[in-house]
Amino acid sequence: MKHYIKVDEWNIIEEGFDPHLNKVSESLFSIGNGRMGQRANFEEAYSGESLPGNYVAGVYYPDKTRVGWWKNGYPEYFAKVLNAANWIGIDIRINDEVLDLHNCTVRNFRRVLNMKAGYLERSFTATLPSGKQLQVHTQRFCSIVDDEAGAIRYAITPINFDGQLTITPFIDGDVKNQDANYDEKFWEEVQREAMEGAAYLTMRTKKTGFEVCTGMRFQVYRDGLPSESPMLPVEAEKYVASRVVLSARSGEEIMILKYAANLSSENHAKDALKSACHQVVEQAFIKGFDQMLQEQAAAWAHKWEESDIVISGDAAAQQGIRFNIFQLHQTYTGEDARLNIGPKGFTGEKYGGAAYWDTEAYCIPFYLATADPQVARNLLLYRYRHLPKAIENAAKLGFTHGAALYPMVTMNGEECHNEWEITFEEIHRNGAIAFAIFNYIRYTGDALYLADHGLEVLIAVARFWAQRVNWSQDRERYVMLGVTGPNEYENNVNNNWYTNTMAAWCLEYALEALEQVQRQAPDKYMEVIMRTYFREQDEMAKWRHIISHMYYPADETLGVFLQQDGYLDKEQVLARDLDPAQRPLNQHWSWDRILRSCFIKQADVLQGLYFLEDRFDEETLRRNFDFYEPRTVHESSLSPCVHAILAAKLGDEQRAYEFYLRTSRLDLDDYNNDTEDGLHITSMAGTWMSVVEGFAGMRVRNGRLSFAPFLPAKWQSFAFKIRFRGALLKISVDKRGVQLVNRSDREINVTLYNGEFTLKGQSQVFVSSEGIKA
Amino acid sequence: MKHYIKVDEWNIIEEGFDPHLNKVSESLFSIGNGRMGQRANFEEAYSGESLPGNYVAGVYYPDKTRVGWWKNGYPEYFAKVLNAANWIGIDIRINDEVLDLHNCTVRNFRRVLNMKAGYLERSFTATLPSGKQLQVHTQRFCSIVDDEAGAIRYAITPINFDGQLTITPFIDGDVKNQDANYDEKFWEEVQREAMEGAAYLTMRTKKTGFEVCTGMRFQVYRDGLPSESPMLPVEAEKYVASRVVLSARSGEEIMILKYAANLSSENHAKDALKSACHQVVEQAFIKGFDQMLQEQAAAWAHKWEESDIVISGDAAAQQGIRFNIFQLHQTYTGEDARLNIGPKGFTGEKYGGAAYWDTEAYCIPFYLATADPQVARNLLLYRYRHLPKAIENAAKLGFTHGAALYPMVTMNGEECHNEWEITFEEIHRNGAIAFAIFNYIRYTGDALYLADHGLEVLIAVARFWAQRVNWSQDRERYVMLGVTGPNEYENNVNNNWYTNTMAAWCLEYALEALEQVQRQAPDKYMEVIMRTYFREQDEMAKWRHIISHMYYPADETLGVFLQQDGYLDKEQVLARDLDPAQRPLNQHWSWDRILRSCFIKQADVLQGLYFLEDRFDEETLRRNFDFYEPRTVHESSLSPCVHAILAAKLGDEQRAYEFYLRTSRLDLDDYNNDTEDGLHITSMAGTWMSVVEGFAGMRVRNGRLSFAPFLPAKWQSFAFKIRFRGALLKISVDKRGVQLVNRSDREINVTLYNGEFTLKGQSQVFVSSEGIKA
Repeated sequence: MKHYIKVDEWNIIEEGFDPHLNKVSESLFSIGNGRMGQRANFEEAYSGESLPGNYVAGVYYPDKTRVGWWKNGYPEYFAKVLNAANWIGIDIRINDEVLDLHNCTVRNFRRVLNMKAGYLERSFTATLPSGKQLQVHTQRFCSIVDDEAGAIRYAITPINFDGQLTITPFIDGDVKNQDANYDEKFWEEVQREAMEGAAYLTMRTKKTGFEVCTGMRFQVYRDGLPSESPMLPVEAEKYVASRVVLSARSGEEIMILKYAANLSSENHAKDALKSACHQVVEQAFIKGFDQMLQEQAAAWAHKWEESDIVISGDAAAQQGIRFNIFQLHQTYTGEDARLNIGPKGFTGEKYGGAAYWDTEAYCIPFYLATADPQVARNLLLYRYRHLPKAIENAAKLGFTHGAALYPMVTMNGEECHNEWEITFEEIHRNGAIAFAIFNYIRYTGDALYLADHGLEVLIAVARFWAQRVNWSQDRERYVMLGVTGPNEYENNVNNNWYTNTMAAWCLEYALEALEQVQRQAPDKYMEVIMRTYFREQDEMAKWRHIISHMYYPADETLGVFLQQDGYLDKEQVLARDLDPAQRPLNQHWSWDRILRSCFIKQADVLQGLYFLEDRFDEETLRRNFDFYEPRTVHESSLSPCVHAILAAKLGDEQRAYEFYLRTSRLDLDDYNNDTEDGLHITSMAGTWMSVVEGFAGMRVRNGRLSFAPFLPAKWQSFAFKIRFRGALLKISVDKRGVQLVNRSDREINVTLYNGEFTLKGQSQVFVSSEGIKA
Repeated sequence: MKHYIKVDEWNIIEEGFDPHLNKVSESLFSIGNGRMGQRANFEEAYSGESLPGNYVAGVYYPDKTRVGWWKNGYPEYFAKVLNAANWIGIDIRINDEVLDLHNCTVRNFRRVLNMKAGYLERSFTATLPSGKQLQVHTQRFCSIVDDEAGAIRYAITPINFDGQLTITPFIDGDVKNQDANYDEKFWEEVQREAMEGAAYLTMRTKKTGFEVCTGMRFQVYRDGLPSESPMLPVEAEKYVASRVVLSARSGEEIMILKYAANLSSENHAKDALKSACHQVVEQAFIKGFDQMLQEQAAAWAHKWEESDIVISGDAAAQQGIRFNIFQLHQTYTGEDARLNIGPKGFTGEKYGGAAYWDTEAYCIPFYLATADPQVARNLLLYRYRHLPKAIENAAKLGFTHGAALYPMVTMNGEECHNEWEITFEEIHRNGAIAFAIFNYIRYTGDALYLADHGLEVLIAVARFWAQRVNWSQDRERYVMLGVTGPNEYENNVNNNWYTNTMAAWCLEYALEALEQVQRQAPDKYMEVIMRTYFREQDEMAKWRHIISHMYYPADETLGVFLQQDGYLDKEQVLARDLDPAQRPLNQHWSWDRILRSCFIKQADVLQGLYFLEDRFDEETLRRNFDFYEPRTVHESSLSPCVHAILAAKLGDEQRAYEFYLRTSRLDLDDYNNDTEDGLHITSMAGTWMSVVEGFAGMRVRNGRLSFAPFLPAKWQSFAFKIRFRGALLKISVDKRGVQLVNRSDREINVTLYNGEFTLKGQSQVFVSSEGIKA
């Protein structure tokens, strides 16, 4: 836990420079626009601890897998999000001294992430080893309006000296990933050109052959007027720059405006990449920093208008939830179905930056409720496009006839994790991918999606489950052996209740979907049947047999579902009885001890009860929650949110709030001591869910929104907006009661607690606390 | 399967040169002496496919572990046996042409491993690209008399030309391991010196700091007379040599005698290493090649005299068993308790050359019966010396109070495998280490070993099991969760019958040992109790409780022990129903499919029945054998031997012979297509066991040897010798009957079938086949 970030409702603020916190701050103050993202590395040189990161969406490297003994079916590589060329760099020399905060005395250091307007600001006073003092003030952003461009304002004022100032804005492609498996560099140079005040560098990834052209143009100003000093081009391998030498006077502000762009061959023809980059850079240059910043602020205002959660009475909670929403928007805009949401977004290398089941299980609800349905649809299409690869992936493991196993980690549809116990066994992700289709249609009502894309995915997923189970003569039931459930603190277990349950649910939903598409779009139905070589009689009969004969481990005495076969053989200890010095377990216990213990990393049985809550009565939910939660150590960032929602449903407001607290400031307070690696982007969507599905109790049933809010004791009020089938609804909860405002022109039917309301366009309803209690 | 090795009772013969088989032959024709071993690489340059290998016993490198995600308790390195400086090298140039068989037309190529006398011979006629022809004949060996020295005789005869011959005997330390995890070189140079006709190179391993000095001296002869040509010293980084240039005449034999030595800092002070090496090389030089070879042949004759198995009527079987015995002797001589038996011995890099449970489970019986008891004792002492490391190893996983977990793979007592499912979970190895103590004492009667060393190991092992089980409230039994049994085609299973059984057996044996040492050596008992902080009351009570409440999975209906919980949930298919094209499974199936299948890699339940056979009646054994063998794919080289022994015990002579066949020529016929990586040394001891414990039915019970031989139908006879408590017994089995000859002066009591015999010194007994049948 760290508490150095100042509490502020709209800004993330660091005051004073602590080099030991620099990598944490580099993560927290990251900026991004869905196309690219940049950690809060310094523009000027810095020789202290740092994790440089400029990530360009969709560009990855297949880093050869690192395993002890390779076995058949192991993925050959682990796809890495790539640290791309440094576009922010501005080298500063005063006479012969390099400005490098690691060697300076730093005063008045202040770093601010302005979430309202979407930019990063930094200012400080540095005393160089020579005693020369200067003041620096910088601003920068990745534009969400011109989403291939970024802009930097970098102002230097000598305080106590006149002297020669050498300013070298540069692009450096000689970068590497700190997590490279074999300490290899992933980029090779294609082309470079340095000109007067501008430069272009095109780099290509090894193996994958992605090209990224990074360009820049800059202008130097002296006390607000363009400098006349020559801008000398500089080139070296993988490096382009342009250098300006000035005689600076004490008190005079030297300002650099640097405009840059990162263009990827994913979006432009390779032979046109440089000219396109040139165009983007020139457009930014012509538009100018102030105009760009103004447009940035306006675009962010629009995002906040739709997706803000306003909390009063708890500034830390307010800051926490806004930080989460801000980072989600920075990571994914939903405009490109080829992109997905890496667990660390654009804020670090860890987890490869690839797509996990986090997207389907945690992120889709956020985008469904706060963005155009196209955004969630694009996330579904991402998987639809990967279906052939998912079928290949399953084939590599020995599955046949169009069975699909979606990868645990992927960039392009191929599996690219590197542990068999995850790759082969954490197959429940297939269930989440099917559930996301269900969830999307439930929320949006876009039933056509099934016929157009969903059904094909559901058939392939159902085929996988039908082959993955096997008939146990011993139990006279279908069993599923050798899996890893959501609780990754167990590997290779048999009959994980969650996996078995979701598998059977997938089969049911696939049958339902077949029936529905056949009824609603018979032509498309026939098309899918033909394309998938679907044997209607046989396959459906098999699925029905599996559904009716699936084995679900349970303990009659305790009245709970069993996480897996033999769970009760473990020594039963509760998390509250653990020595706090041994938490988190994954940093203190051997993996052996963790695997054998009863402790649960994140919701497992409870994840199933969350997804399929309508199938279980409250008593079942309560018994399982009361049994499993005390055994859960919540060492995944994805754990507390599900527990918050379930606790809220069970009426345990205090615990719901406690779970919420664990997640909302996870990164701001560096709860797990790992923020330096990057932010927990996907769990941020879980935080949003804690508020909306937890405190506000939002559900969709039979095409109808419902709410059952409560106000956490510490808060005076909270409010948020929801998009639902063309309507825009604002929900405000305070001590007096709950107000629903329909901000759209579309009529909407809402259930609030037990009352049913029809809100015409631009109308509202208020239910007072007294009314609720009554 | 390959069949290019000529069948011969005493020699391994390759005729004709096939570059594609070269790496296989390099393994098969390896030479060694327990201190060092050398693959059958060529002396002269060879640019074709080759795995260079000169291995010096006890010298290893801790190669940084390659895992996807490091977790607490994972070993940090995988210890590698090191390819050390090339001592055999003799570079040959004719005018400017290098002799390199890869570029020559090769005729009359013949490679012979003379097992009777212990040397490698090679001859060929090569036509160089220029058309020049020459004939080469070489012999070499690693001396088992002067066990740090090797000698080479290398003779060249120009056939169709007169020309300049440049001969450069060299030592090259610029070598690497092909299995290096990060493509790193492991050796750095300490010192080098090249002189006239001699050279010394001392190399040091990175990290571990082992030093090895490799030295050589040579003499060149022309038609049998020492050449007068100058021998020019040559040096380069990590390279020393001495060059001779001659004008060779057609038909003239140019012979090089090269004497070399590999001395390790494990056996000499570092500062004296070079001078000691010099001494060894000079002694060899003075002794001379012929004398050394003569001594070599005599020493091998002595080894054969004691450990040969003579088979008549089946030359292939004869060659197979001799090859196995020969390689075992080449690998381990038992003189140095710091050494052990790597699964590939000195014949390849794979499996790191370290000690596995193979030693205790398969090799000890061979050495017990064919060598001085000191040899097996040294293998036990190896583990005794590693006890503190085994305690550390367990502590890293969270075990306390002196519990020891012996490593799965080790060089120095530290665990250095790199898969958690093996490292943490294949803990049954602890049982094999305890069983080896029991087995040693049962065989030798050396009860003092318990008090001196064994008890301490047994206490530590018992403590491990007592902590590793946990009480299941659900079953009201002790269970053992998360293990990998001998069948490595399952990982992370619960209640592996073998592991539970051996664990309980260890506890029983530890209790017995405590009682026995207390009775026989009360002083030593107290010493051990004090040193181990043994809490007699508590710990023994706990052990007894575990023994009486251990859970053993079994199926009542089938009347078999269950390999692990849930084994019967698997789809039950038999190995004979597998498509032969899919065998071996590990080369055709995904690991996922293998893990979930019912197929068994090697004896698991049956391994327990083999170790503890006296505890089970024959019907139990038969039911389990009949159930498990058909599910076993024998994809470990260690599998068939146990099955051969059990089949023999059950009277199934035909199947016993079939299992024997699978193992005896495993490498000679390259059965598993992997001989190029090195030979399966430890399974060779299993082959020996198949004959002695299988066909001859040898057992030791209550200090008494017993036999119940049968003669495989294809054989006319077989015979072998056994050392037992000071006696030397020869057992001969032919169609007429069984003859036992006591070749020693010590009286020995033997059970033969149901008859009990007392054989006085130098006496014999014969039981005719009729007598047996009666």
